[in-house]
Amino acid sequence: MGRAVRPSGRPTVIECKGLVVLPGLVQAHIHLCQTLFRGLADDLSLEAWLAQRIWPLEAAHTEASVHASAMLGAAELLLGGTTAILDMETVRHTGAAFEALESIGIRATAGKCLMDAATNPPALREPTDKALSESADLCATWHGAAGGRLRYCFAPRYAPSCTGPLLRAVSDLAERTGATIHTHAAETPLELDTVKRETGHDEIAYLDSVGISGPRAALAHCVWIEKDDIAALARQQTNVVHCPSSNLKLGSGIAPIPEMLAAGCRVGIGADGAPCNNRLDAFTEMRLAALIQKPRLGPDALPAAQALELATLGGARALGLGAEIGSIEVGKCADLIVLDLESPHAQPEDADLISRIVYSARAADVRHVIVDGRIVVRDGELKTADTAEIRRKANAEARALRAKALDRH
Amino acid sequence: MGRAVRPSGRPTVIECKGLVVLPGLVQAHIHLCQTLFRGLADDLSLEAWLAQRIWPLEAAHTEASVHASAMLGAAELLLGGTTAILDMETVRHTGAAFEALESIGIRATAGKCLMDAATNPPALREPTDKALSESADLCATWHGAAGGRLRYCFAPRYAPSCTGPLLRAVSDLAERTGATIHTHAAETPLELDTVKRETGHDEIAYLDSVGISGPRAALAHCVWIEKDDIAALARQQTNVVHCPSSNLKLGSGIAPIPEMLAAGCRVGIGADGAPCNNRLDAFTEMRLAALIQKPRLGPDALPAAQALELATLGGARALGLGAEIGSIEVGKCADLIVLDLESPHAQPEDADLISRIVYSARAADVRHVIVDGRIVVRDGELKTADTAEIRRKANAEARALRAKALDRH
Repeated sequence: MGRAVRPSGRPTVIECKGLVVLPGLVQAHIHLCQTLFRGLADDLSLEAWLAQRIWPLEAAHTEASVHASAMLGAAELLLGGTTAILDMETVRHTGAAFEALESIGIRATAGKCLMDAATNPPALREPTDKALSESADLCATWHGAAGGRLRYCFAPRYAPSCTGPLLRAVSDLAERTGATIHTHAAETPLELDTVKRETGHDEIAYLDSVGISGPRAALAHCVWIEKDDIAALARQQTNVVHCPSSNLKLGSGIAPIPEMLAAGCRVGIGADGAPCNNRLDAFTEMRLAALIQKPRLGPDALPAAQALELATLGGARALGLGAEIGSIEVGKCADLIVLDLESPHAQPEDADLISRIVYSARAADVRHVIVDGRIVVRDGELKTADTAEIRRKANAEARALRAKALDRH
Repeated sequence: MGRAVRPSGRPTVIECKGLVVLPGLVQAHIHLCQTLFRGLADDLSLEAWLAQRIWPLEAAHTEASVHASAMLGAAELLLGGTTAILDMETVRHTGAAFEALESIGIRATAGKCLMDAATNPPALREPTDKALSESADLCATWHGAAGGRLRYCFAPRYAPSCTGPLLRAVSDLAERTGATIHTHAAETPLELDTVKRETGHDEIAYLDSVGISGPRAALAHCVWIEKDDIAALARQQTNVVHCPSSNLKLGSGIAPIPEMLAAGCRVGIGADGAPCNNRLDAFTEMRLAALIQKPRLGPDALPAAQALELATLGGARALGLGAEIGSIEVGKCADLIVLDLESPHAQPEDADLISRIVYSARAADVRHVIVDGRIVVRDGELKTADTAEIRRKANAEARALRAKALDRH
């Protein structure tokens, strides 16, 4: 990042007449390791969803399946105009995910999931030391790799899955390495109750007490938070990542995003994992972020321009890259997408452009995608990998995971 | 309808290996005359939205602009897999909309909007007799036209916009002609209060008292209804048309659809008009219908299969065509769509197919569309009209309408 791209020989010229050039969209909460689980876990509560599907499937992952899952998810993301993500992998094989991210050309901050508490499913639980040392090794290898396009995040799954010592160590490691901290918070009332019972604190205050707060931290969801929490998050400049589809589909609720924005919180958006969405589509999330607040707060709540900012600058800040990506400016990286809004669904053409982008446009309208100056999608086709091969491998690995993890299939 | 298509000469064979064949999607509440207003009326309350934008724009319509608006909307609908609609036009030029619907090949039940109450904006208000006689004439011309593909609906805008005598006459006309009645109901608390104040009745009871109920009637929205209303709608077998995007975007609320289904109500879905959505996309509405109930009722509320039924058989019933369309059965019309779910966003391929269709698929995955045995979309291209020409005319007419109706632009 920050490297000037010096054209060698003749520059590539892409004709964009009549098209719309936007900063690449940023999704600040994704689980690429779950992409192979899409459609295997629908219409279930968060707790059943985790225990019956996600835990067993994550535990069954191999290097090959983590790689295939990351390739499938990243292909969908790039084709749909998402150029940068904050990604939480599973507890094992995170190196394989980084290899996929390196080759496919998306900008990614990713990390191994941390689960050291005694209450975790045994197949995923790791000793604190092992979890931390493996994270530190991954950070040493991948943080700043691919010319800065890849970065590391320390990723405690959520407060109840981690011990206090692990969370404090994560805070120290992140501070020392300059990496991001990526976790979930305040997704369900049950989670809040668990944290309160185990620590005596409200969750947001507890996370702050162990150093999981401030501009370096990104907290996915924050659905069940009170006025005091919002003030604290704003004061700390902790990043909140709004996942409207996931919050609806798992029945979690509607996060008070307009209240957070009014209080000065930093907010990005994300699709979460494929099994709780089931799309990794920034257009779907932008539009839904704007829509779901309106019955509660009125039709002028979270207008289109604000939704677009969540999906660009908001996400950039959550990745710690507010100075590098999220807008088109001199000195920023060339993460750009080009939209074709000529189809009937985006007419008339003289209407407000932000409205057309947020309310009418869709992932399939993305024609070209550039990440860090490299063309990764051209004319709607992925240039950095073979999508037929991605599909073939994803389907083979998904079948193997299902056979191994889910008896009933 | 019901006509057997007898192949003359060699039949057309469409290779569908690896593709998914579905009954055509049905949207039972659309305002094609508003398609040109897309992106001109965002982030406003229903009342401001109507008074500041929709009324003036509808009043400015000409034959040419109504035709262009219908062509643009119908093109988007067909390309996105919607094969049949229930459409409410504006008060004038409805014949031009029918001409567009006839030529573009969608199955449509459409009607002139009725607004005879003294409280209507003068530019749209019509005398009761004129409104009724023009409706009867349109019904005589278009109900059953194009081999039964086009049908008429009597379309009182909503209870507050119509006099009691008009509503009773509509009920009689519909009974006599076999046409559908298409109106809005219980969209906002203000609407309910108005009806209560003016008639002394709750809205659903009032509509029933003037004959707007039963299988022949389709009531869009029904957001603000109580248990008693639900029981009445179920008993009457009145069709409810759920418009989740519109209800969110205008801040109206979330209709109690699972409660209606549990009570035995007939429910379809619809995108409503382009300015309050801003897509005319049945995939968006299906997915959102499934998602928005879950925070309130739990993640197993309105599962994917139920959402798909709303968008097929539910809509077919609302159009009075439950025996003709909405499922693939011997003796039903050939209204079919073919989906390509090979892209990354719909993988893995072994996942639950209904989940893939409702939660992952999108309008752009529609490859072929057949209405009444005729191929109207092939390989993602509209075969019945020139989309470049539709766009050109839509943009020219939209510019003229804006110039005429909206001073501030």
